[in-house]
Amino acid sequence: MKRLSIAIAAATLAIAAPAAAQDLAGGAAAVRDKALTDQTAWSIAESLTTEVGPRMVGSQGMERARDWAVAKLKALGFENVRVESFTTPAWSRGAESVEVVAPWPVKLHVLGLGGSVSTPAGGITAPIAVFTSYQTMLDQPPGALAGKIAVVTQRMGRTQDGSGYGAIGPQRWTGAAEAAKRGAVGYLMRSLSTDDTRLPHTGGGAPAGIPAAALSTPDADLLENMARRGQPVTVRMAMTSSVNPKAQAWNISGEIRGREAPDEVIVIGGHLDSWDPGTGAVDDAAGIAITTAAAKLVAQAGPPRRTIRVVMWGSEEQGGSSEAYAAAHKDEAAKIVVAGESDSGAGRIWSVSLPKAGADHAAMKAFRTSLAPLKVGVSPEPPAFGGADIRGIIGLGAPFVDFNQDASRYFDLHHSADDTLDKIDPAELAQNVAVWASFLHTVANSDVEFRTKPAP
Amino acid sequence: MKRLSIAIAAATLAIAAPAAAQDLAGGAAAVRDKALTDQTAWSIAESLTTEVGPRMVGSQGMERARDWAVAKLKALGFENVRVESFTTPAWSRGAESVEVVAPWPVKLHVLGLGGSVSTPAGGITAPIAVFTSYQTMLDQPPGALAGKIAVVTQRMGRTQDGSGYGAIGPQRWTGAAEAAKRGAVGYLMRSLSTDDTRLPHTGGGAPAGIPAAALSTPDADLLENMARRGQPVTVRMAMTSSVNPKAQAWNISGEIRGREAPDEVIVIGGHLDSWDPGTGAVDDAAGIAITTAAAKLVAQAGPPRRTIRVVMWGSEEQGGSSEAYAAAHKDEAAKIVVAGESDSGAGRIWSVSLPKAGADHAAMKAFRTSLAPLKVGVSPEPPAFGGADIRGIIGLGAPFVDFNQDASRYFDLHHSADDTLDKIDPAELAQNVAVWASFLHTVANSDVEFRTKPAP
Repeated sequence: MKRLSIAIAAATLAIAAPAAAQDLAGGAAAVRDKALTDQTAWSIAESLTTEVGPRMVGSQGMERARDWAVAKLKALGFENVRVESFTTPAWSRGAESVEVVAPWPVKLHVLGLGGSVSTPAGGITAPIAVFTSYQTMLDQPPGALAGKIAVVTQRMGRTQDGSGYGAIGPQRWTGAAEAAKRGAVGYLMRSLSTDDTRLPHTGGGAPAGIPAAALSTPDADLLENMARRGQPVTVRMAMTSSVNPKAQAWNISGEIRGREAPDEVIVIGGHLDSWDPGTGAVDDAAGIAITTAAAKLVAQAGPPRRTIRVVMWGSEEQGGSSEAYAAAHKDEAAKIVVAGESDSGAGRIWSVSLPKAGADHAAMKAFRTSLAPLKVGVSPEPPAFGGADIRGIIGLGAPFVDFNQDASRYFDLHHSADDTLDKIDPAELAQNVAVWASFLHTVANSDVEFRTKPAP
Repeated sequence: MKRLSIAIAAATLAIAAPAAAQDLAGGAAAVRDKALTDQTAWSIAESLTTEVGPRMVGSQGMERARDWAVAKLKALGFENVRVESFTTPAWSRGAESVEVVAPWPVKLHVLGLGGSVSTPAGGITAPIAVFTSYQTMLDQPPGALAGKIAVVTQRMGRTQDGSGYGAIGPQRWTGAAEAAKRGAVGYLMRSLSTDDTRLPHTGGGAPAGIPAAALSTPDADLLENMARRGQPVTVRMAMTSSVNPKAQAWNISGEIRGREAPDEVIVIGGHLDSWDPGTGAVDDAAGIAITTAAAKLVAQAGPPRRTIRVVMWGSEEQGGSSEAYAAAHKDEAAKIVVAGESDSGAGRIWSVSLPKAGADHAAMKAFRTSLAPLKVGVSPEPPAFGGADIRGIIGLGAPFVDFNQDASRYFDLHHSADDTLDKIDPAELAQNVAVWASFLHTVANSDVEFRTKPAP
């Protein structure tokens, strides 16, 4: 029996030792190819958007999402399924109504911005001041907007890399606060949208003390056209909202445990919470689905050397999950081999950015080779962002990757009622899973080292 | 002095006599080319959608539309501007809320169908029965839907000629009545939409006695996906509406008076009313704009022989204006040279269908020649429809034309909140004006006869 035990131990060692580059390449290609026809990611996205739907932090939807996440991870065979609680302020939408009352009455399609205050009962009725560029509003002196509702209608550009969002982002992030500084009593902005549907796009904004809402792009056009006539245009805003300063939230995780180096952890995932108007399909059921399915595919190929942990972060949109995750895991930060988050929808990946340390390791060369059929290049630039939910652990020293997705259509949908399952292209979703699975397989089964200060 | 009078009379005759084919071709080409850069149509569509917006028959918006129409026709130099009153039943929307209550609660994006009854106070809560084809619902025996909310989710096809609408139309037109016959307590249907936005498309339906609403296409998908799981799905419908059985409505017209044969009248136009969710841009500010601008361009080219009358019909969507127009004009029906309505949006015209009598007249040959640069063919088929608002006068014997527009995108927008100005392509709008102006110029300045029984 002793001989048998030794034989088993040897076999286990054979499985668990860092694989040779040739084996890595073969393994990465195999999980990649399996991913391209595997239905797990689609099934996860379909399940989350159908059985849970909208899931704002602090809502009943989020409680259902928590239970869904635990059940889904267990059903897929993840180990160490954990629910890590934290509290965070949670804004929630009440009734919202914004309309032109004179001279051409019409109801406007709006969504309050996260963090917007309520109007007084009866609403606010005031003339509008329309600015077709955000800078023009910023150029107004203090008091210039006194008693007015400021309206910014600057358009967002469509870009493959999503950079149009960052370029125009301040219009939402700080617009209401800047308008309030200049005396405005309300703030309306063209949605950060590349689409022309009558659906506004919500999102968080800095505290401003005045009600603030996003207009659908056709409604922004309408206010521009009314303003161009030179007559005063009067708008009424009636909005309510509430804030729970200590809403319960949860980061939920499950692991594919490493067999040789279980304490070396690859941390990946997406965020479980969503804004309220859609069913949170591209933002971010897609990210949850891609990373969970990729980890599952690697597990199916055989126990990896290192541990893969999938995290479903619980409060990305309103913030808090990154900090909570970093606080809960600060003691293991040095053991995080690499971190990554999928949170740019389901558009295909067109390039990957790898940490400089390790990028030229034989394992990563095998990974690069596996990417060619997926039409993915390796960027010469190092990773720049990682993801909102891993900023905390990156701050603790965790290396991270960026998988750059085609965001051309993402901002047609982002934070709007149009963020629904039908907008996910199954083939593009599968391409994402293939890239992630290939990467996870390679990193989890090799000794590639991205940390500049390796774990003790 | 007598000689001078004779000279003036001769000159007048020279202007007013039917033009030679060569002159007609030159004139048609000139108005066509002017139309391609003229801004009148765009300006009309912009004005109606900005200064009036939604205009349901029976609403304050429609009263404003009436005043807008009179002022616009006068400002453009039309003569004999007339407001012809009639009454018609007018349905109007109240509050509407439809949601899945179990097992996966979510609010659905819906619009009540015109004619839908209100639910009892507190709404109707019932299990759904989902049919992915309309025929499958029709195949159910009496009583099969007792106590249920019937849901039909059949998809609409995208077609250049708009035939996908007619093919699936019964799902809206008679679906609720057919569901009620089988015992259903409510009716939901996938919008007659070729788009995937979260915006439902309303429209009229036959009286059914049960509440009926259109789902956005992603919401129809969602109910399909829920139903596929095999568990009972419970929906709550809470809707209110009201009907004014004798709402005031108006057909409004203006004329370019003919100088030789003023009693020979070309009747063209679009409809002024709209559904409530959008601003009625493609349905039918476009038709109003195209026909009004085309008539104006012909007038600018010099006084025509025959009269061109532009009519803005006042109740197409809920019906009534066709009958009212025919009743008010039955005595002049024999004097209507030809009638036409523009009511398929602003997509480019790809073919025209001319009445058989007159189609081979030299004037029509000149018209055909003018169409070539616009990439418009003459259909071998005779006109089949004309337009909903001219069915009445067609019934009295008026000849009519069909200008067939590319409707590929029309049903992305039709009857939805997305029917807004930005969806009109200015170049395609201008191409429509060019075709109409060329046609009007040719018919108004010739003696082409489409009537099989010419006026006495």
